[in-house]
Amino acid sequence: MTQSHMAREVAEIPQVAARFLDQSAPALARAAAAMRAADPGLIVTVARGSSDHAATYLKYAAELLAGVPVASVGPSVASVYGRQLRLGGAVCIGISQSGRSPDIVEMMRSAGAGGALSVAITNFADSPMALASAHALPLLAGVEQSVAATKTFVTSVLAGLALVAEWQDDDGLRRAVAGLPEAFDRALAVDWSPLAARLSRAQSAFVLGRGPAFAIASEAALKFKETCGLHAEAYSAAEVLHGPAAIVQSNFPVLALAVEDAAQAGVVQTCERLAAQGADVFVTGAAAQGAVTLPAVTGLHPLVAPLVLAVSFYGFVEALARRRGFDPDTPPHLRKVTETV
Amino acid sequence: MTQSHMAREVAEIPQVAARFLDQSAPALARAAAAMRAADPGLIVTVARGSSDHAATYLKYAAELLAGVPVASVGPSVASVYGRQLRLGGAVCIGISQSGRSPDIVEMMRSAGAGGALSVAITNFADSPMALASAHALPLLAGVEQSVAATKTFVTSVLAGLALVAEWQDDDGLRRAVAGLPEAFDRALAVDWSPLAARLSRAQSAFVLGRGPAFAIASEAALKFKETCGLHAEAYSAAEVLHGPAAIVQSNFPVLALAVEDAAQAGVVQTCERLAAQGADVFVTGAAAQGAVTLPAVTGLHPLVAPLVLAVSFYGFVEALARRRGFDPDTPPHLRKVTETV
Repeated sequence: MTQSHMAREVAEIPQVAARFLDQSAPALARAAAAMRAADPGLIVTVARGSSDHAATYLKYAAELLAGVPVASVGPSVASVYGRQLRLGGAVCIGISQSGRSPDIVEMMRSAGAGGALSVAITNFADSPMALASAHALPLLAGVEQSVAATKTFVTSVLAGLALVAEWQDDDGLRRAVAGLPEAFDRALAVDWSPLAARLSRAQSAFVLGRGPAFAIASEAALKFKETCGLHAEAYSAAEVLHGPAAIVQSNFPVLALAVEDAAQAGVVQTCERLAAQGADVFVTGAAAQGAVTLPAVTGLHPLVAPLVLAVSFYGFVEALARRRGFDPDTPPHLRKVTETV
Repeated sequence: MTQSHMAREVAEIPQVAARFLDQSAPALARAAAAMRAADPGLIVTVARGSSDHAATYLKYAAELLAGVPVASVGPSVASVYGRQLRLGGAVCIGISQSGRSPDIVEMMRSAGAGGALSVAITNFADSPMALASAHALPLLAGVEQSVAATKTFVTSVLAGLALVAEWQDDDGLRRAVAGLPEAFDRALAVDWSPLAARLSRAQSAFVLGRGPAFAIASEAALKFKETCGLHAEAYSAAEVLHGPAAIVQSNFPVLALAVEDAAQAGVVQTCERLAAQGADVFVTGAAAQGAVTLPAVTGLHPLVAPLVLAVSFYGFVEALARRRGFDPDTPPHLRKVTETV
């Protein structure tokens, strides 16, 4: 059987990450120096789809490490409603694999014109978004042929983490980021086959996380839809108890992305509550009563651990897609670049 | 048959809205004056569940009318991760029906200590959240007995809109807000029975909106889960084309909340694209090829129109819940106050 583009691109993640860290250091240093000089009281992010999940991850990293609030701004504010936000003194970080979505390019231009420091995270240094921004962090991930973004998603998050580590001059996070290529290698070796068996015919599921792991839960839910035709929805492990738990009946599948951080105990508690109401709960790296524990790479910095889970998930979901009869490279009805205006 | 609490509370919405506008004017004027004096470069919101959808609505109103960026801050940043954000010069708006969720109370206290102007939107003037904040806008909506928040959700959004109108001294929005009780009366009279027929046995659905209507789409999707056991998920009408559309197969139900604003043409375009791939699309107040048009109150200010749709939706979903065999007042597994820490 021929390997899918997605499988090949997921397997490339460790080397793509290593290349980014090796070759992007000068661009990272320049952008981080500009952020230190700007000393922003606010960061705004602009992104769509998978890239917006990378922006959510960046939000937690910047809020938890630097204490600077991060607002996600809908590109529609500028492109549809024609409103220029007051962004003087802010940093505006745009994330887009292609760097070509017109509304995002317009938002970056508008943020720069309004006095923000603009930083583009994109695969291509010569993309319109990179050219419209004061700084660009090219991902150098190579062409991505699968419609489902994987190596570019992981490298986008990595770029954001590396930027925060340099900006804050945080040695712990810097070391953790440097260790990611090796951690990704280990992540590709984990086996989540009990979950694959449960999801081989499921129609609905929840994916839970908290803090930066919520960003990965959102990304996982999107990939379940794109590649497996599975209606998975992401929730914060706290938020899910405010209403959504009403549809969690007997045998409803739940994947909880727990990492070794301050939120872990709360995530485990949510797992136990949902298992007690009959759900089929799978949780990564932690023990929870009534739930199945999935293996995960351990001993990681809490701000990089969720990203390592994403890599394990990608390997898993590519195989699940084929098992469910889908071609992971060509989801129904989708194109690689969605040009929203 | 006895009327459900939910049906009675939805029917009360016009009078509850009128009471809020009548009795909260002095508190609104004080909070708005404090916001004008603070002249914030940033607003942060803190909320969970339905209240977080009210916060999303407030985000669009503040960004589109005042041009001030709005960041939603997870209560976990303070309560779980122990991080105090740099919020000097910001306005922090908390929204909670009960005003008793400990993590939200803690976040309001922490924001105030960090130099933000804190404003609580809550049903009870003597709740811990109101007491922990510099200003409070009590909703005066009376006790809400149904677990599904309806009259308090609508009044929370109304309070946010009234606050933005006073803060910005915007006569157009002020008049539109004053006209809401009458518009809510008309909203309760619309008939969405074609949608009820389609959803009487559905398992999954999407609810779409853009701008402030996306906030109402999120609220509608949550209510579908809570009261009907239906796995409905909300998407921006632009975002849905970035991946999620992959699960929209033949006869997949889609409810698009379109209002007469700058985004309407784009929402109609998304409806037509999803209808062309076989979805059963229902759209409010607009004509879209291949879709069913649902009646909606017309001629409204674009910043209040989505809230009026919420009232039509509530009347509709209460009846749908009973049709699907659920008691709308007592969703499975839920309690009224969820105390997340």
